[in-house]
Amino acid sequence: MQAPIDVDLQLDAGWIVPIEPDGVLVDHSLLVDGGRIVALAPTADAGRDYSPREHLSLPAHVLLPGLVNAHVHGAMSLLRGIADDVGLQGWLHQHIWPREARFVSPEFVYEGAQLAAYEMLRGGITCCNDMYFFPDATARAYVKSGLRAMMGLPILDFPTPYAANADSYLQAGLAARDAWKHEAGLRFSFAPHAPYTVHDRTWERVVTYARELDLPIQTHLLESADERAESRTRYGTGPLERLHALGVTGPSFIAVHAVHLQPSDIELLAAQGSHVVHCPASNLKLAVGVAPVAALLEAGVNVALGTDGAASNNRLDILAEARLASLIAKTVTQDAAALPATSALRMSTLGGAKALCLDSEVGSLLPGKMADVIAVDLSAPDQLPCYDARSHLVNVVSREQVSDVWIGGTRVVRDRVVTTLDRAELASRARFWQDQLQ
Amino acid sequence: MQAPIDVDLQLDAGWIVPIEPDGVLVDHSLLVDGGRIVALAPTADAGRDYSPREHLSLPAHVLLPGLVNAHVHGAMSLLRGIADDVGLQGWLHQHIWPREARFVSPEFVYEGAQLAAYEMLRGGITCCNDMYFFPDATARAYVKSGLRAMMGLPILDFPTPYAANADSYLQAGLAARDAWKHEAGLRFSFAPHAPYTVHDRTWERVVTYARELDLPIQTHLLESADERAESRTRYGTGPLERLHALGVTGPSFIAVHAVHLQPSDIELLAAQGSHVVHCPASNLKLAVGVAPVAALLEAGVNVALGTDGAASNNRLDILAEARLASLIAKTVTQDAAALPATSALRMSTLGGAKALCLDSEVGSLLPGKMADVIAVDLSAPDQLPCYDARSHLVNVVSREQVSDVWIGGTRVVRDRVVTTLDRAELASRARFWQDQLQ
Repeated sequence: MQAPIDVDLQLDAGWIVPIEPDGVLVDHSLLVDGGRIVALAPTADAGRDYSPREHLSLPAHVLLPGLVNAHVHGAMSLLRGIADDVGLQGWLHQHIWPREARFVSPEFVYEGAQLAAYEMLRGGITCCNDMYFFPDATARAYVKSGLRAMMGLPILDFPTPYAANADSYLQAGLAARDAWKHEAGLRFSFAPHAPYTVHDRTWERVVTYARELDLPIQTHLLESADERAESRTRYGTGPLERLHALGVTGPSFIAVHAVHLQPSDIELLAAQGSHVVHCPASNLKLAVGVAPVAALLEAGVNVALGTDGAASNNRLDILAEARLASLIAKTVTQDAAALPATSALRMSTLGGAKALCLDSEVGSLLPGKMADVIAVDLSAPDQLPCYDARSHLVNVVSREQVSDVWIGGTRVVRDRVVTTLDRAELASRARFWQDQLQ
Repeated sequence: MQAPIDVDLQLDAGWIVPIEPDGVLVDHSLLVDGGRIVALAPTADAGRDYSPREHLSLPAHVLLPGLVNAHVHGAMSLLRGIADDVGLQGWLHQHIWPREARFVSPEFVYEGAQLAAYEMLRGGITCCNDMYFFPDATARAYVKSGLRAMMGLPILDFPTPYAANADSYLQAGLAARDAWKHEAGLRFSFAPHAPYTVHDRTWERVVTYARELDLPIQTHLLESADERAESRTRYGTGPLERLHALGVTGPSFIAVHAVHLQPSDIELLAAQGSHVVHCPASNLKLAVGVAPVAALLEAGVNVALGTDGAASNNRLDILAEARLASLIAKTVTQDAAALPATSALRMSTLGGAKALCLDSEVGSLLPGKMADVIAVDLSAPDQLPCYDARSHLVNVVSREQVSDVWIGGTRVVRDRVVTTLDRAELASRARFWQDQLQ
């Protein structure tokens, strides 16, 4: 008989949904040490085999990997609900860009990103992929919050308060990366805004830097129907074909939105091993259409879920996106079996991790991965009965049932309270910015 | 200077959304006496003009009329999540009807309906329109919970554990009504299941009774695409034309789902002053399609929102339906301005009350109406900033932010706790039935 193994943490749960492998473990325990998952074991065995320094019993809870929000503009939480019921171009040109030009600053971004981090952590998101001006300020907010993040370094070919031209966007982005590259919870990527806002020459420079530094490239692709026609007029080819010719595509290319794909685009993305981030709420709200998720999955393309910014959603809630993605896919394909709960959950976790090239570290509860874990309370009558915890996570649970969140083994939400950020201060600063923006 | 008027209750709120008239009142108070709304007044004036026996200050909350769930099968909450990712006919024939045939009893219905009532009250629903076997048992559960309800008396032309034939359905329904007709919070209607499950002769009898007793008629109409073709084959006409010829339509006719309407159906519903209950989550989940809500509203048809049963949703959450209705309408019409938050909120409250012929009593915060009121807490950082409380109610708020609920002036949810039902007992009974059904 062996002596019990010392570990930092033992979580006993009514259910564990590890994502890898697919399935539901009943009455199992998750063992964590040094911030990483050591093992999953029946609770009856774990008591014999492990000696935990901290031990938590969650018999009415389901444990699963932290949710990944694969597309967000964190600081835009300060613009939550400022312009509803407007189409994409009017929303950008009349509401968002003018306000950004006037108000966006490192302080705005730092405080907006903290607001976003609070909301994401509270709702079980442990990792996000951000894309916004002043990524240095966002990085500071996310590190403070404990959120794991990939920072997209924004690049545009027109001036904003953040940078004057492609050169200065690139310089500012690389400086932000240099300042934070040793932070364990942060990764970096290049984020040229979209094919239609970035010139060929800038794309080529991005590709050069991305190869040299081994960084992913993400961009808004084919969010609206007119992008293809405009690209054909200006460049003689579709947006994705153009990016492919410029060397942008590949296994670390992330196409955000990807609503108006044609079959050859899906083939190209599949052949390149590229990733799609599906943002159903934002796409529906801006009435741009619905990405062909079922066809992408069928072709073998990895699909992740994103909220987009709170200005076009208006919430940062991956559980809600999972439910919406599942519902809308069934209607678009006229097949009630399309995008079942298991697929939607996988997209919300491992799909996101894969898109961010982080799946060797997070995205499932495989031993050896970082302990990014959330607990969801299924004990309230409105969660009962529960015939399958995976179905409940997509079809029944609200993010408010997320009770606890660990990132790399550190508990950042405890009994529904975010421990890393000051709720009263965040609320006060949100109200300050609201007064400014109104 | 007049003496202050004695009233039962004064609620001071940061915002009030009365629905009638449209708009947002800032820093106003709602005055309630004898279960009815007496007045809305600026809080600064209310303190001078009224002397309340109970006084509550909710500066970070929005008050609005209680939500109306215009289509639910309450007892089916015990089947929550028992069969996902299946089309309508397979779902009915292979999963739901066989289990109902085996398990449905007055006890099942009484306990399932309490579970539904708990969930609805907790989420701000103050009134529902139910349709299920053993309506007497559902009535007992809803009266216990304090929920206002219209009971649909179910009628089918095939036998179930509840009744053997049309005669016995009618008799059992009328007996349930006789037993409960003096209960102030209950109304009754006839609920023939669908055109395709009820014969002409039965419809004719329903029409006769409905006229005699002045009761509304509700039915599932054109939920799936094949109903029209089947009706043409069997009856030589479409389902709605058939019901119209049988005398079913009119201002107290409620068409539930109404997904596959043709333009002439919309004209007929408008001309008759009939009502449609839109159930977006259920329709998407069963992949039957999307009701033409924008066209219905354009034609002047009153549209309400319903959750359907928890077996096809899988939650009874009208705020979620409002958000989904708004999002999906924008995409179906390719118009981001379609079904704005104000319309979705109106459908969630006054639209529901109108459909149930209860709009003289509830559905808005007009003085004289019953005090069916809910308070929603907008103080958490994930609700901030708030530029328009109406947008937040549809696009940001989860039902978990509902903090308090009054029905006819009686507080049935207090600080997020349902006061009329025993949470632990409900959970225990839900688990009992889960073990039986599994």
